[in-house]
Amino acid sequence: MDLAGDSRGSFKRIALLFAMEAEARPFVERLGLSQDAAFGDPRLPFVHYRGRYGNSLELLLSVNGRDPRFGVDNIGTEPATLNAYVTLRGFAPQLCISAGTAGGFRSRGGAIGDVYVSDRPLRFHDRRIPLPGFDAYGVGSYPAAPSGELARAVGLKQGGVSTGNSLDHTEKCLELIERGGASVKEMEAAAIAWVAWCLGTPFLALKAITDLVDGEHATEEEFLRNLEAASRALGEKLHRVLEYLDRGGGQAAV
Amino acid sequence: MDLAGDSRGSFKRIALLFAMEAEARPFVERLGLSQDAAFGDPRLPFVHYRGRYGNSLELLLSVNGRDPRFGVDNIGTEPATLNAYVTLRGFAPQLCISAGTAGGFRSRGGAIGDVYVSDRPLRFHDRRIPLPGFDAYGVGSYPAAPSGELARAVGLKQGGVSTGNSLDHTEKCLELIERGGASVKEMEAAAIAWVAWCLGTPFLALKAITDLVDGEHATEEEFLRNLEAASRALGEKLHRVLEYLDRGGGQAAV
Repeated sequence: MDLAGDSRGSFKRIALLFAMEAEARPFVERLGLSQDAAFGDPRLPFVHYRGRYGNSLELLLSVNGRDPRFGVDNIGTEPATLNAYVTLRGFAPQLCISAGTAGGFRSRGGAIGDVYVSDRPLRFHDRRIPLPGFDAYGVGSYPAAPSGELARAVGLKQGGVSTGNSLDHTEKCLELIERGGASVKEMEAAAIAWVAWCLGTPFLALKAITDLVDGEHATEEEFLRNLEAASRALGEKLHRVLEYLDRGGGQAAV
Repeated sequence: MDLAGDSRGSFKRIALLFAMEAEARPFVERLGLSQDAAFGDPRLPFVHYRGRYGNSLELLLSVNGRDPRFGVDNIGTEPATLNAYVTLRGFAPQLCISAGTAGGFRSRGGAIGDVYVSDRPLRFHDRRIPLPGFDAYGVGSYPAAPSGELARAVGLKQGGVSTGNSLDHTEKCLELIERGGASVKEMEAAAIAWVAWCLGTPFLALKAITDLVDGEHATEEEFLRNLEAASRALGEKLHRVLEYLDRGGGQAAV
């Protein structure tokens, strides 16, 4: 990572934000992270894990938890916003990574199992507000840390990441994703990037592709079929990202 | 208000959440509320006001503030989620009211300037997640306090409130609003209701109609034309809601 503009030097306190338990599990198990039930706000559904990596990294991994009424994970931007705030406020990391699964685009060279890192500001594709000023605000554009060196070192694809609250898409969503030049469609990253920007925390999105938005299969079928394999690929790459940071990668040039 | 199921008795600490400064201004000025710059988190854009009402009410009014890059108010569900959390966490109110302007439906008897109070659980119309369990989660259904007695006492219309992150709408949005039987379309309430539900705070939405979604004019034109008048109508009704609560209205039957 070439986060040369950051004045804080290296990145040793890392927050990892996941929406779904299934996305985080391979990584949590591999690192043997342990739950920290005292972290955060007990009234909120989020689940927090702590651990160390290598010689120098301190990790806080947060998952959005389950909605007890519907029995499913709290996916989407509202839980992501709140979990990001609770995590960044309580842990004060030097880097925040939104990790998870996502849709890719065949037309942009995407394939199932690819892992992308964000290479440009994060945008929304479902906040359409046709009023002067609000139109640009709705789309967003929240900063992502430069990721070229990291992508080369770890073997990640680079691309734009676009966020919306639906797993499926309308024609209007596709039009806005296309206009923003995004290669990845998912449901949390821009919301987390907004919180990270408010709190002054450098941000990256790391997303593994479960389905091709412009492929021949329905998103929901592909998503379920590939969730486990994509989450393993994500965990593997995340491991290598941390290895890179532990070696001093991403150290500011200043 | 007939919040008979609530065990806390009467409602004396009231949190009022607004998205836009223009929506809150008539009410803030009329009550002479003063800004409390020490409340909340200085890194977040939210603006908080404190005040008292009548003999017994303590108020915290929070507005989402402006995005300095785009120069517009932080509307939509992500800022609403975070402001709700910061406000409810710091103030611990006995009742949370999401107040603001909204679109109405002529087909449901709505007219410009009407003020609605929520009468059923809050729903989203732009979180489409076609996976088992996630579909219902996406739509949401977050509790709203019973409001029949309040509506009669104060002269409010009652109706369902549906939330999404766009000022405009797609056919899919309309289909989901229709399916939920909502009379009001706006951009924050369900997100706030989710946070209030997490924290165990009774919730109501109070929304003044600026535009008719099924009328002949474009939402954005009508919205700008009617924002000021609708915000005045909202402030007027909010005043009467507080008067009602101050007199002991909404006291639990238990």
